[in-house]
Amino acid sequence: MKLYDYPGAPNPRRVKIFLHEKGLAYEAVNCDMAKGEHKLPAFLEKNPSGKIPVLELDDGRCLAESVAICRYLEAIQPEPNLFGRDPFELGHIEMRNRQIELELWTQVGVSWVNGPIVTKMWQVEPNTRAKRASDANVRRYHERLDHEFGQSDYVAGGRFTVADISLISAIDFGAKLVDLQPDEGLENLWQWHARVSARDSVKNN
Amino acid sequence: MKLYDYPGAPNPRRVKIFLHEKGLAYEAVNCDMAKGEHKLPAFLEKNPSGKIPVLELDDGRCLAESVAICRYLEAIQPEPNLFGRDPFELGHIEMRNRQIELELWTQVGVSWVNGPIVTKMWQVEPNTRAKRASDANVRRYHERLDHEFGQSDYVAGGRFTVADISLISAIDFGAKLVDLQPDEGLENLWQWHARVSARDSVKNN
Repeated sequence: MKLYDYPGAPNPRRVKIFLHEKGLAYEAVNCDMAKGEHKLPAFLEKNPSGKIPVLELDDGRCLAESVAICRYLEAIQPEPNLFGRDPFELGHIEMRNRQIELELWTQVGVSWVNGPIVTKMWQVEPNTRAKRASDANVRRYHERLDHEFGQSDYVAGGRFTVADISLISAIDFGAKLVDLQPDEGLENLWQWHARVSARDSVKNN
Repeated sequence: MKLYDYPGAPNPRRVKIFLHEKGLAYEAVNCDMAKGEHKLPAFLEKNPSGKIPVLELDDGRCLAESVAICRYLEAIQPEPNLFGRDPFELGHIEMRNRQIELELWTQVGVSWVNGPIVTKMWQVEPNTRAKRASDANVRRYHERLDHEFGQSDYVAGGRFTVADISLISAIDFGAKLVDLQPDEGLENLWQWHARVSARDSVKNN
């Protein structure tokens, strides 16, 4: 299978970490977003939303959306389990993953599209009011996470799951490219960060 | 089990349609959002994100996030299947559901929080630039859907799934409360709307 990827992009990173955890081999195909290759007709046939990552199977069928790709991978390679085993755990991990996505990722995204890199590249005026709000939401979510990591080692409880993959990708992207590094005083959050960053899958992707 | 609900709110509606499709009984508990009950300490213990719906199990454990609740319900009551059966279908339905959420729901949400109802209730100035962009994104997504429903009867292919529940809730909420009814000329989209609205689960919730 092929993974359409762009080095440094946070969503493909989620899938690459997931693939590494599963021990699955794949061919990475570079889709140069800086050149707009993800908006060309040939790519839009694979994903009409014009986004990466996309997983292309050997029979040519394609899947987009990071978590959708990961669900497919969990189904073809169930171990190590990253989405939950019993009904409550399946719901709980989905809930935690969605909270990271809907309350942190979305806000990092607003700060990103209204930050200097994107507004300069697209030559548009930033929506500064929206960015002020999203920056504050990110900071507030970091504090919530720090509180939660005082009670559990991983996002969804006592073990590493897909929700940790979503979080490490959001935190690292926010810190490197959106100038939203968590405050040094958030010790529980930084301990979690060290714990997860020590994994081979995270170090190598 | 109990479902914390607020009549008219679109996310609890998704879960109520899902419960109806599964034939599962539950007790609806009113959480009066207009009075801010979803932000009170007793509710935040159930869901620190301060949002509805929340499903409370008979043993007191709680699940938030509509799709997470639905995944739990799918696991305890597998039929009728609404999330997919084989690996590709599991990924495909997740992808389609996420596209509806990330490309349509989020934009309806921006129009909602910057629309007259919310800005009057919260006594804040709307971010008119953000609303103009989200209104346009919603209209554009309606056109994409109309094109897609020329090729398949339901969001994720030939049968009704969780992705149709997400879409009907987004479309109806946008039409009733955000003044973003799909254009009359989008016939394929309206045919899908009639097809899905004829279901008992949708009619009664």
